[in-house]
Amino acid sequence: MSSDFDVFGLGQCSLDYVGVFDSYPSPDTKHEFRRMIVQGGGPVATALVALSRWGRRCLFCGVVGDDGFGEQIRASLEAEGVDTRGLLVRAGEGSQFAFVIAEPVTGRRTILWRRPTGRAVAPAEVDTAWIEAARTFYTDGLFIEASLHAAAVARRAGRAVVVDAGTLRDGMLDLAALSDVFIVSETFCRALVGGDAPLEACRRLAALGPSLTGVTLGARGYVALADGEVISSPAHEVRVVDTTGCGDVFHAAVAYGLLRGWEARRCLDLANRAAARVATRPGGRSAIPSGDEMLSWAERSSTKL
Amino acid sequence: MSSDFDVFGLGQCSLDYVGVFDSYPSPDTKHEFRRMIVQGGGPVATALVALSRWGRRCLFCGVVGDDGFGEQIRASLEAEGVDTRGLLVRAGEGSQFAFVIAEPVTGRRTILWRRPTGRAVAPAEVDTAWIEAARTFYTDGLFIEASLHAAAVARRAGRAVVVDAGTLRDGMLDLAALSDVFIVSETFCRALVGGDAPLEACRRLAALGPSLTGVTLGARGYVALADGEVISSPAHEVRVVDTTGCGDVFHAAVAYGLLRGWEARRCLDLANRAAARVATRPGGRSAIPSGDEMLSWAERSSTKL
Repeated sequence: MSSDFDVFGLGQCSLDYVGVFDSYPSPDTKHEFRRMIVQGGGPVATALVALSRWGRRCLFCGVVGDDGFGEQIRASLEAEGVDTRGLLVRAGEGSQFAFVIAEPVTGRRTILWRRPTGRAVAPAEVDTAWIEAARTFYTDGLFIEASLHAAAVARRAGRAVVVDAGTLRDGMLDLAALSDVFIVSETFCRALVGGDAPLEACRRLAALGPSLTGVTLGARGYVALADGEVISSPAHEVRVVDTTGCGDVFHAAVAYGLLRGWEARRCLDLANRAAARVATRPGGRSAIPSGDEMLSWAERSSTKL
Repeated sequence: MSSDFDVFGLGQCSLDYVGVFDSYPSPDTKHEFRRMIVQGGGPVATALVALSRWGRRCLFCGVVGDDGFGEQIRASLEAEGVDTRGLLVRAGEGSQFAFVIAEPVTGRRTILWRRPTGRAVAPAEVDTAWIEAARTFYTDGLFIEASLHAAAVARRAGRAVVVDAGTLRDGMLDLAALSDVFIVSETFCRALVGGDAPLEACRRLAALGPSLTGVTLGARGYVALADGEVISSPAHEVRVVDTTGCGDVFHAAVAYGLLRGWEARRCLDLANRAAARVATRPGGRSAIPSGDEMLSWAERSSTKL
């Protein structure tokens, strides 16, 4: 069975302004910072940029406004070879925007963001052909109805469903039940199990169906459950400048490994390395490792092919 | 003596993104906000926009980069009728940018800003004809060497020199010595006198030469010294949404009153009213009172014409 695309992605795309700060600004002050990077962002959009750099053919569906940011977001995807035929432009509306306060001294990152002001992607706006044309369906669940619809179509067509779950919104557990890979943020984990119990969260999510579940934990790395096997690791130590995009690229790397047919441990190990690298420069797309680096890391991985 | 312009302004121009927040974001979180206004800003640029709306002819000199923001900044001035022949574009550089965290609930406003990355306006870049063509020279002292040069030229030509002094930088007291009006921020005041002693600051500044000195104090209003007379008032009470631009418009209103030949007390009273109005909507230029309102306030002012 041949496919036109490796990944069909549905979810957030943003324009990110990353300011590099010496310290966290106090309220009610004027705080001058020195450096700013303007870059496309958003969990799914950045994941697709990473996957495209690693040679995967990607198609993106999301929402922007006709506010100038939208065109920059589109350009940031097309310049990376991501197909944007699914990018919907809402007239008179604003695009997703984030101002990121990055503190290299502490490694902290504070994201101030506004979601697109236009209406969400509706299920009917997701062309079934896009889903069927790709080997993997990849989403963050932001447009939950469309995500549930697309996941159901993808499953029926025998496609893999991979979810980067940042927030425990209504419908997210229904989405987990339709997923093969469901890896969540620390915030999602706490909302699900009421505390810092990532393995418990993995087990609960795995009970819904996904063969690979996990929780990303920032500097503490990740905890995952792959067909009943617990896999965990602290984050790779790097000199952190800005952690924007680390999670996005972690999930992208898992999807990449699965597309290559690697076992979960190798995928997660690769994801952990890729995520750490992203933290070494400001902006989520500045330090994505190259496809060659990804392959070289995968070859040196201690796990069997 | 006729003049081509009422005001020649030299100083900051910015692109401001004002986000409206329910609370101040905690570090290391993702904080979603709902509303964002994109607007030109910067103390001198916003003051000239206000003066232009009040029928004064204004010419602006400042620095932008060729980064997209620069063209938006220029457009935000030209749309208001401000002459931008003095706007210098530095190739390959970034324009001034601010992300403002406005909290209507508390009235707090936190400005995260980056100055233009290109070099400052040099004295030789300020055309003497621009200075001589205007009745008033207006500056924030950001480009201190050019400001000192222009103030000296303005004085020799018999023009009024009005300074909105936000920060006690090197050279600012030399600039005070060349000024007719020198009104400073609370931050400037504290740096000058080592504490919360605005009248003491007014006296020290007046000793350098300006006939009108003052300190703006946010919700506490202002304290000023006009030819030896102490004038003060708390701020007008309004429902505060965003205090961005309040200071800029306060200073602009003082300059406006002086251009009309009004006495200091009337100018300051008008400035206090105009500044409060600016706080009622997000962004420094959204709620600048109209010229008619300014005249109506001035007529009702308890002071004599």
